[in-house]
Amino acid sequence: MNEAAATGAGIVTLLTDFGLTDPFVGVMKGVMLGIASGLRFVDLTHGIAPGDIRGAGFWLERSYAYFPRGATHLAVVDPGVGTQRCPLALSVDGHCFVGPDNGLFTRVLDAALAHGANVAAHVIDVTALRTRLALAGSPSRTFHGRDVFGPAAALLASGAPIASLGARVDTDELVREPRSGEPSVVIVDHFGNLITDAVPSDLALVRGVDIGGKRLRLVGTYGEAKAGECVALLGSFGTLEIAVRDGSAARVLGVAAGEPVRVVDAP
Amino acid sequence: MNEAAATGAGIVTLLTDFGLTDPFVGVMKGVMLGIASGLRFVDLTHGIAPGDIRGAGFWLERSYAYFPRGATHLAVVDPGVGTQRCPLALSVDGHCFVGPDNGLFTRVLDAALAHGANVAAHVIDVTALRTRLALAGSPSRTFHGRDVFGPAAALLASGAPIASLGARVDTDELVREPRSGEPSVVIVDHFGNLITDAVPSDLALVRGVDIGGKRLRLVGTYGEAKAGECVALLGSFGTLEIAVRDGSAARVLGVAAGEPVRVVDAP
Amino acid sequence: MNEAAATGAGIVTLLTDFGLTDPFVGVMKGVMLGIASGLRFVDLTHGIAPGDIRGAGFWLERSYAYFPRGATHLAVVDPGVGTQRCPLALSVDGHCFVGPDNGLFTRVLDAALAHGANVAAHVIDVTALRTRLALAGSPSRTFHGRDVFGPAAALLASGAPIASLGARVDTDELVREPRSGEPSVVIVDHFGNLITDAVPSDLALVRGVDIGGKRLRLVGTYGEAKAGECVALLGSFGTLEIAVRDGSAARVLGVAAGEPVRVVDAP
Repeated sequence: MNEAAATGAGIVTLLTDFGLTDPFVGVMKGVMLGIASGLRFVDLTHGIAPGDIRGAGFWLERSYAYFPRGATHLAVVDPGVGTQRCPLALSVDGHCFVGPDNGLFTRVLDAALAHGANVAAHVIDVTALRTRLALAGSPSRTFHGRDVFGPAAALLASGAPIASLGARVDTDELVREPRSGEPSVVIVDHFGNLITDAVPSDLALVRGVDIGGKRLRLVGTYGEAKAGECVALLGSFGTLEIAVRDGSAARVLGVAAGEPVRVVDAP
Repeated sequence: MNEAAATGAGIVTLLTDFGLTDPFVGVMKGVMLGIASGLRFVDLTHGIAPGDIRGAGFWLERSYAYFPRGATHLAVVDPGVGTQRCPLALSVDGHCFVGPDNGLFTRVLDAALAHGANVAAHVIDVTALRTRLALAGSPSRTFHGRDVFGPAAALLASGAPIASLGARVDTDELVREPRSGEPSVVIVDHFGNLITDAVPSDLALVRGVDIGGKRLRLVGTYGEAKAGECVALLGSFGTLEIAVRDGSAARVLGVAAGEPVRVVDAP
Repeated sequence: MNEAAATGAGIVTLLTDFGLTDPFVGVMKGVMLGIASGLRFVDLTHGIAPGDIRGAGFWLERSYAYFPRGATHLAVVDPGVGTQRCPLALSVDGHCFVGPDNGLFTRVLDAALAHGANVAAHVIDVTALRTRLALAGSPSRTFHGRDVFGPAAALLASGAPIASLGARVDTDELVREPRSGEPSVVIVDHFGNLITDAVPSDLALVRGVDIGGKRLRLVGTYGEAKAGECVALLGSFGTLEIAVRDGSAARVLGVAAGEPVRVVDAP
């Protein structure tokens, strides 16, 4: 517990749409502990809406840099499990990522490439992985979190070089999340706040936000809104957010993920 | 984090019907850390339906072998807490189990005995346990997870011999889950998939599954179903499963846990 | 894993109203691991109703002593985040607490002072904290769990003296939870049990409990109630509780948190 020397080596974060009702997440951890017994796990969330690649990719990009460099981030939102989509391992600016090649890592890669970070992508060789770990039989057709991605993450987190997992591939060849380019609501959070992917270039110029036919004023924090008032504010992950004081903006406005927003700047 | 030497020593998995809304699970862990501060916990699930001994026993049997040998599995689904039912500690094939003698371990024991595994069952001596740990007063009448099972699991996980917890008992004397013998839906999972306990002896012979008056065809993975189609497939835990692509089979078929299924084999 | 020497050093418990749908809790842990990589986390609960300072304070007071001395308890239920309320660090009987000064710690402090425990309260100096940790920029206006309280808890849990976080303040100056003094339902738990803050001075004298216009008899454990019967019993955390066998007392009685209860003693 040296204040200075903290690194993410041996830490595996997990982000899935598996929920917590079933033992899916626990079993993934069991498999990983069988590969490297010293691993430590941090659940990012398992509450991604089933198959919501866009929401998962948003949270992943917004969250990972809060962990120390050297951490491995296991992300499994995988509606195409068992079909031809590739399993990926990425290295981004000292962090590792493991998951399916279905667009989940689009935002992580775009942001990293935009600020010139070191990025490498490798396609996981599943046969070699299972041979190396002496795993019997074939992976299941429906649970690659346990049978492919978890084992790969355990190896990376315990120090295996990413290149030992499979051949490098150009990031241009990866599947990308379809994006309209227009900002919209990406997440309805636990409190009913609407988290958008609108990043204001200069917050001082923002006059308000248009959503669902209404114009909302910008405030600094929840407590500045009147009771029941719907407001916009800069959320804690750097994007604009719509909130109702002591209430649910999703319910008050009747909108869901995907709803477009328009940032109104000073003229 | 030696790839080769991973064992489950010091690992405690937890499976309960306590939910995560209250601090019940956290407090159990606190008590265990007070007994052995180096323990590491993996939540299997706390989302078992209240009192669902059958669902809990199913997941336990299907899950535990994914953990390294030496792990301790704490399972508390205990509608009879505070009555005469016995507290148990089991040793099965290098794994330990702790929980109430109410049928929860029926499937674990049946499967282990069927393949000739080493099995030992001990009744936990609660008075001796609390004296040994210098725990004041009597256990509560309603939270033996914290006051009996957790402390016993902490001792086992930190290396105490199972025989030190109490007298050995013959497994024939344990309470058994009442089972019809006919396969049925055991779990409706987070995605609305219906997980059955039907284990096909030869998947190649399976022609389909009858459930709720409908015959469903067998596919290899979710992606092979048409949108909205209800199909059967071999689930990732080795039993037959009913799923709807991008939807909830439970909702589409209108069935719940307990619904009988019939596997249709080739003639 | 010495049975005798267990202490809570390096353990951080977490209690919030953040839910588990979003990565808020995971990101707090990431920040803390970046400060002290050897920390171990135990989630008390993240299922506190949004803004429910009273329920949070109740669980905190009832739970913390089940952890070994030396543990740090991070509690964030913070509807006033970003306004003028102070960030606090407390030392109570060998345990540390970190969270907002909004009444959350009222019950912990009242109980500790009532039995003459050692108590010290310090106001966290946010600017000094962020300078010390070389955190860039200002904290967000809406997520002090990540930007203030988590970092402070990480320092305490890794051995920093509480006085290094900020100036000592008299506990009389802290914000207090408004309390009527009359016992009432504080929590509706996962099972639908109604957990009250009524602490019977002599259980043997209790004849029953009045709630919602009904008088309920006292039993020893759930199994002593008839099917469907609503009963009172001494809950596992030392307060009176209302339960229905194999059912939800909240649903049967139609009452919620805040409902007054009256303990009927022998004449």
